[in-house]
Amino acid sequence: MSKAVILLSGGLDSTTVLAIAQSQGFECHALSFDYGQKQRSELNAAKAIASEFRAIEHRTMRICLDDIGGSALTDPSLEVPKFNHSGEIPITYVPARNTIFLSFALAWAEVLDAQSIFIGVNALDYSGYPDCRPEYIKAYETMANLATKQSVEGDKIQIHTPLISLTKAEIIQQGLRLGVDYSMTTTCYQANDKGEACGECDACVLRKNGFDQADVSDPTHYQ
Amino acid sequence: MSKAVILLSGGLDSTTVLAIAQSQGFECHALSFDYGQKQRSELNAAKAIASEFRAIEHRTMRICLDDIGGSALTDPSLEVPKFNHSGEIPITYVPARNTIFLSFALAWAEVLDAQSIFIGVNALDYSGYPDCRPEYIKAYETMANLATKQSVEGDKIQIHTPLISLTKAEIIQQGLRLGVDYSMTTTCYQANDKGEACGECDACVLRKNGFDQADVSDPTHYQ
Repeated sequence: MSKAVILLSGGLDSTTVLAIAQSQGFECHALSFDYGQKQRSELNAAKAIASEFRAIEHRTMRICLDDIGGSALTDPSLEVPKFNHSGEIPITYVPARNTIFLSFALAWAEVLDAQSIFIGVNALDYSGYPDCRPEYIKAYETMANLATKQSVEGDKIQIHTPLISLTKAEIIQQGLRLGVDYSMTTTCYQANDKGEACGECDACVLRKNGFDQADVSDPTHYQ
Repeated sequence: MSKAVILLSGGLDSTTVLAIAQSQGFECHALSFDYGQKQRSELNAAKAIASEFRAIEHRTMRICLDDIGGSALTDPSLEVPKFNHSGEIPITYVPARNTIFLSFALAWAEVLDAQSIFIGVNALDYSGYPDCRPEYIKAYETMANLATKQSVEGDKIQIHTPLISLTKAEIIQQGLRLGVDYSMTTTCYQANDKGEACGECDACVLRKNGFDQADVSDPTHYQ
């Protein structure tokens, strides 16, 4: 079995990615981050989901992105905004978050001797974050293949993004086929301690619209 | 004044880089990592050096690379080897270390609205680490310029590597011209709590040879 590191936030997208990686026969090593996010309850979801999908291992690493700030997800003085269609990158963007997450995944993959990293980025029904776009992922993969001892020795790393060109509805349909129970997932940017969603932020509205468009009853627990 | 984030380990190279960035007129924000390294005393050196060179700010971030392991610098069960000329990448290589360090620097640079990151990589008198090579740095910069909100808005980030094509002797000569007191720096991979060097590891021998070749008395405190 090939090994893979799966970035797992506990949300709808990354949970679907874990289910896809499992269905493709990868030995899954799930990685979550306690990075000072307001929606810290997503980590409970990640733990339960990693267990449900029989990940070989699940690690949660503490990194202090709240010390760096610059985002409504990590700075208590910035309010998480309601969904809007401005087209601008919203203040829920966390500086260099995916770059940092992928870099820890790269380090762990090297130690595990894994050649695959899975990340649930999506460039259709998304918040407009630059580090979710295909051109960013491609550039990251190129860099990663120059960064490590593993790559110098000829074992190429691949960044898998199975959701990148799917709509939220298509993601949900694929997950349901693979047995995902979306009531276990926490997507909301300001989920409370029980993992209940606000229903109003970008992440909630994109998710809610996805269930509508997939013609699936929304299993989300709202506050 | 342009702002810059300076990766500062407290060693010879990164201290010289801080001196260079200051001499070029940058407002310097120094960043160190407590990453579970054996040579943790280098952090004391970094603190003193940041103060000596009047960095605007110096931060030390805790990240648990010792949980990931895979290196003689972070794994207590792996001994730091003596210098040898095998040409292979030594076990002091820390998986994806520069990628992780640069990624935190990128995040901080974005919050500071800085367009410059300085890193003391060197591809001549070095240990053969893949993430010190010019092609790696170039790929990192390309990726970074697709990763952030700042880059999407047109503010390009530049990774400065002023030492990349210098010999250790040339680095020392440049640092001395800029007033660096190398007795303050800690380079050894297994420096003791007082910052005293073993004199036998790769880092020590490359440094010692540098002072020899520069015809400068070696100010290192040895154990």
